[in-house]
Amino acid sequence: MKPILYLIPSPLGEEPVDHILPPYNQRIILTLRHFIVEEIKTARRYLRRIDRTFPIDDCEFLIFNEHSHAEDVSALLVPLRKGFNMGLLSEAGLPCVADPGSALVREAQLEGYVVKPLSGPSSIFMALMASGFNGQQFTFHGYLPVDKRERESRLKSLERDSVQTHYTQIFIETPYRNNALLDSILATCNPGIYLCIASQVQQEGEFIVTKTIADWKKKRPDLNKKPAVFLLSAG
Amino acid sequence: MKPILYLIPSPLGEEPVDHILPPYNQRIILTLRHFIVEEIKTARRYLRRIDRTFPIDDCEFLIFNEHSHAEDVSALLVPLRKGFNMGLLSEAGLPCVADPGSALVREAQLEGYVVKPLSGPSSIFMALMASGFNGQQFTFHGYLPVDKRERESRLKSLERDSVQTHYTQIFIETPYRNNALLDSILATCNPGIYLCIASQVQQEGEFIVTKTIADWKKKRPDLNKKPAVFLLSAG
Repeated sequence: MKPILYLIPSPLGEEPVDHILPPYNQRIILTLRHFIVEEIKTARRYLRRIDRTFPIDDCEFLIFNEHSHAEDVSALLVPLRKGFNMGLLSEAGLPCVADPGSALVREAQLEGYVVKPLSGPSSIFMALMASGFNGQQFTFHGYLPVDKRERESRLKSLERDSVQTHYTQIFIETPYRNNALLDSILATCNPGIYLCIASQVQQEGEFIVTKTIADWKKKRPDLNKKPAVFLLSAG
Repeated sequence: MKPILYLIPSPLGEEPVDHILPPYNQRIILTLRHFIVEEIKTARRYLRRIDRTFPIDDCEFLIFNEHSHAEDVSALLVPLRKGFNMGLLSEAGLPCVADPGSALVREAQLEGYVVKPLSGPSSIFMALMASGFNGQQFTFHGYLPVDKRERESRLKSLERDSVQTHYTQIFIETPYRNNALLDSILATCNPGIYLCIASQVQQEGEFIVTKTIADWKKKRPDLNKKPAVFLLSAG
């Protein structure tokens, strides 16, 4: 049997693990002792939430996050090369989706290891499902520019794409800048365009609402410091 | 309490339900008696797989699928209007992602009902996770054109986008046409471009492999009638 790199989703926030964790994932995770994580503290906490008796002190935790370099990748796969299965744990949601980790998965792929993704939650895809927008064609843009003028020019271009191609346009922002992004959207986009705001997905206070820009202008939510996904659709 | 429309993911194929179903989803589903489904037979079978004692004969099943019309949508939400929670069940994977249902969700959104997506599997996103490609920016195109010349010209344009923007390009095909699509990809794309083929995700025979076009040409898999997701990346 070739060693396997499992890609292990995590809760989006403080929701109970049984809201997102299929029993199969739990069984797989309990067999692993070699993990690649963004932050050891939260990874240990997640493993303890899965099973209070998990032998965390027998586990090896290697770190891969936004501060890691391309040249660090290969060394992280040493346990695989020694024949051990490994788990790549995300901090929240799906590993490698709006999340570091893909350089590592690519290296594992190119070295011929088996890469096995496990099922789990993603605020992006749960937002897409619940938006009512086109789920047959869509683009995820990650973060828009921080500079206001550049951001608004980018929003104009996303709006144009949405009108011309009907692809749903999805993007995110650092939570403390959400209100500034919402200002830009309301100032820039046509009143008849639809905007879905998906905030605190799976959490207490989950809010996933689709309205026209005109309707959002009448009553706008306060999104400050609340994780959110934004989706635009020409309808 | 406002009535809730739950969006309920389903297994991608014959994998056991505990591979994809968090216990929370099961608890929610067991409370519902009003479902919107693509096909009643498979929906009943799924509910029985979740719980053999599920009171299927006490449930109302309304049909919404690719043969439904825009004017059918409103009538399907009658149970919500009467105050009942409802479940929108997909045939495989996430409702509304490469799947009908979004027209219905949009109507529920615009009528002001609460729409609650549940966590579950998606062959598209599991393929993206395991590809090793850019998961910070990506586009899902659904199906490419069936006509060979149009398909190849489309592939050229996706390849160009991938080189210029580094967005991962994701698309699917009807399983019996997978080999024709793979022919087109290998004939059209540059040898140095990366292609990930994700076939039978979560199933027996799962195959998720990333190689360059040049390497795929040396040994190509038979994808006939095997569900597959294709991903292109300039690297």
